[in-house]
Amino acid sequence: MKIGVLGTGMVGHAIASKLIALGHEVMMGSRTANNPKTEAWASNAGTGGHSGTFADTAAFGEMVFNCTNGSASMAALNAAGHERLNGKIVIDLANVLPPDERRSESLGEQIQKAFPLAKVVKTLNTINCDLMVDPHRLSASHTLFLSGSDDGAKKAVRGLLESFGWSDILDLGDISTARATEDYLRLWLAAWRVLGTPAFNVKVVR
Amino acid sequence: MKIGVLGTGMVGHAIASKLIALGHEVMMGSRTANNPKTEAWASNAGTGGHSGTFADTAAFGEMVFNCTNGSASMAALNAAGHERLNGKIVIDLANVLPPDERRSESLGEQIQKAFPLAKVVKTLNTINCDLMVDPHRLSASHTLFLSGSDDGAKKAVRGLLESFGWSDILDLGDISTARATEDYLRLWLAAWRVLGTPAFNVKVVR
Repeated sequence: MKIGVLGTGMVGHAIASKLIALGHEVMMGSRTANNPKTEAWASNAGTGGHSGTFADTAAFGEMVFNCTNGSASMAALNAAGHERLNGKIVIDLANVLPPDERRSESLGEQIQKAFPLAKVVKTLNTINCDLMVDPHRLSASHTLFLSGSDDGAKKAVRGLLESFGWSDILDLGDISTARATEDYLRLWLAAWRVLGTPAFNVKVVR
Repeated sequence: MKIGVLGTGMVGHAIASKLIALGHEVMMGSRTANNPKTEAWASNAGTGGHSGTFADTAAFGEMVFNCTNGSASMAALNAAGHERLNGKIVIDLANVLPPDERRSESLGEQIQKAFPLAKVVKTLNTINCDLMVDPHRLSASHTLFLSGSDDGAKKAVRGLLESFGWSDILDLGDISTARATEDYLRLWLAAWRVLGTPAFNVKVVR
């Protein structure tokens, strides 16, 4: 599949490279054309790797990952453009840092509201990027959460996540439940601090 | 030990009855004297069970559980009185419901600030009351979080929690980390909704 990855940080690199490894054609996008970061990534990625602006990347992808920093996500998606996101699945991985910048709604909801014709799915925002793309780094099973208002989009994203190695995926409901996993950020950061590593996740034990 | 339990709801009943079963002497406290709920509980509890006002209960306990509803907790603790809480361990289990009533600080921090000579420990606020007092209801191991600024108090509370059956107890740090577990409430509620039961918890998988 052709997949767009917005964002050039650690998360963008982890997701884009995983997608290449799985055989997808991937464009990594940034604010500017001819960005040395996206060009270096694309040239390392081989024939499946491409580099472009946010708008190029949204136009390229049949599915688009938002891997930008949460506080920059709305600007990045606006640069990507409504007409290039309409009808597409937008997988939102972003968290707003620091978390005490409280909002009356989650970033996932904000994106869905601003892009009503996109199909926003919030997921992967509760773990470190190494675990996002390689859940088997932990020896025991652990849980990934999923929120979104379009069932078909969630089904497609679930399939992609399963190809990443995820098996315990808990669908929390519509996009309003993105607030639940975004609010979890502070517990994640506190646990990271005391565990001394981001290589952990939670398992929902029933 | 003599333990005070503030609150007459499901949480107060679960904690107070567990403490009786473990051989402690327990007073359940409410706003009013001669409250039929606390008197009924105390008479069922046998010789170790007592009933009183919030103030009576704080004076009685060497350790005091706050099992009141989060939005009523400050009023209950003020009725209990500074002079009766000073120097004592206050175990705060409360959550503010609904969770979208955002605060700039957690209830745990608010209590510690308002009662600077009490030793506030936030814990047990991430699970249903049946699991609080009987973690073995779930077949697999799961994690309990602990926050507080007094290490001696946390050690004493950990010992009491171990007597409840808890083994995986993660100390998140000082009382400011109560915010982390209070923010988790929305994820807990969302998971409860889709799982159809409050009989679940998370295990931190490393």
